[in-house]
Amino acid sequence: MSERITSLRTKTPQEGFELAVKLAQKGVLVTQPSETIRKKLRPKYSKDADSLIMASQVIAIHFQTVAAANNYWK
Amino acid sequence: MSERITSLRTKTPQEGFELAVKLAQKGVLVTQPSETIRKKLRPKYSKDADSLIMASQVIAIHFQTVAAANNYWK
Amino acid sequence: MSERITSLRTKTPQEGFELAVKLAQKGVLVTQPSETIRKKLRPKYSKDADSLIMASQVIAIHFQTVAAANNYWK
Amino acid sequence: MSERITSLRTKTPQEGFELAVKLAQKGVLVTQPSETIRKKLRPKYSKDADSLIMASQVIAIHFQTVAAANNYWK
Amino acid sequence: MSERITSLRTKTPQEGFELAVKLAQKGVLVTQPSETIRKKLRPKYSKDADSLIMASQVIAIHFQTVAAANNYWK
Amino acid sequence: MSERITSLRTKTPQEGFELAVKLAQKGVLVTQPSETIRKKLRPKYSKDADSLIMASQVIAIHFQTVAAANNYWK
Repeated sequence: MSERITSLRTKTPQEGFELAVKLAQKGVLVTQPSETIRKKLRPKYSKDADSLIMASQVIAIHFQTVAAANNYWK
Repeated sequence: MSERITSLRTKTPQEGFELAVKLAQKGVLVTQPSETIRKKLRPKYSKDADSLIMASQVIAIHFQTVAAANNYWK
Repeated sequence: MSERITSLRTKTPQEGFELAVKLAQKGVLVTQPSETIRKKLRPKYSKDADSLIMASQVIAIHFQTVAAANNYWK
Repeated sequence: MSERITSLRTKTPQEGFELAVKLAQKGVLVTQPSETIRKKLRPKYSKDADSLIMASQVIAIHFQTVAAANNYWK
Repeated sequence: MSERITSLRTKTPQEGFELAVKLAQKGVLVTQPSETIRKKLRPKYSKDADSLIMASQVIAIHFQTVAAANNYWK
Repeated sequence: MSERITSLRTKTPQEGFELAVKLAQKGVLVTQPSETIRKKLRPKYSKDADSLIMASQVIAIHFQTVAAANNYWK
């Protein structure tokens, strides 16, 4: 996700979740801009349960933000 | 949980907790889409206390969001 | 805590804290439903300082939710 | 802190911080009720930087709750 | 980011995210002020998936704050 | 920071960030009151990237609290 974030508003919770995923990835991207290195890391962490849980946690934190921004799609 | 999230509203706190669990799982699923790999990881992390506590933490974060979305089922 | 969560309202902060503990345990329970396995893990993690601190953190996150649900028992 | 939590209100931020510390300790206490074991763990984790940072984090989460409960002592 | 934080307001979510990144870096900077040491650490942690996920998490927490400060750029 | 916290109000975001740093340090201090031991730990954790990221995270959590206490310095 090198693309810019233009808005936190989404039509549905599903799209909000997808935005949260992108934000989590973006946080990794700014710390490690090299796509080559990130791709090298993927096979290992995507097979490590703790890494997956940690990644899910970052998504959860961003989803709080996105959900609040959308007034929880009420 | 490959199904889409259509709403954060639930009738009861119990259903809200179940939704939080699904959201936490969904965060893992997007990072590791292969069901085969996720199933392989399960026997190990589900017997590791720290992994279980970490998983419980992700659920807790999502439960904050779901609870807020439901005005705490007041 | 296989029992269902019926409400986040509690009479006192003390009961709210106890509910937060139950929610944290419930998050572990859904990930590892086998009581036999959970009991096996207990002797080890309950003597590991980092595990205890992590468990305390999950409780803290749920306590935020429960406290907000009760308007902080003001 | 086996004593019960009777209120989240405190007169000052300082007392609020002290309450947050007690809540963090209480979270450990419920998971490991044996004072003998907790005292045994102390020498090690209190000399481990990462454990100290993690403990500080749990306090920080509870301090958010206590501060909100006191309307930030405005 | 030795520069001072003058405001949490940003024009866009994208700038808000960039501010969150700076705040996360600033938190590291205050703990380890030596640029020499920080630069030495970089090659290792920027190739460690767990470190990258943890860094992304700190950014996520700050992004919550910045987003709230900007009323989610609604 | 053995000094007491007298207020969460600060004039600027910069001072708010500095207060968040102090609160994070205070959380460590209450758990390990010995300055001698804390100083011994410093050379190691301040050169460990993961410890630095974790420290930055605690600061981030306190900064959320301080920012909210100051209505985000709007």
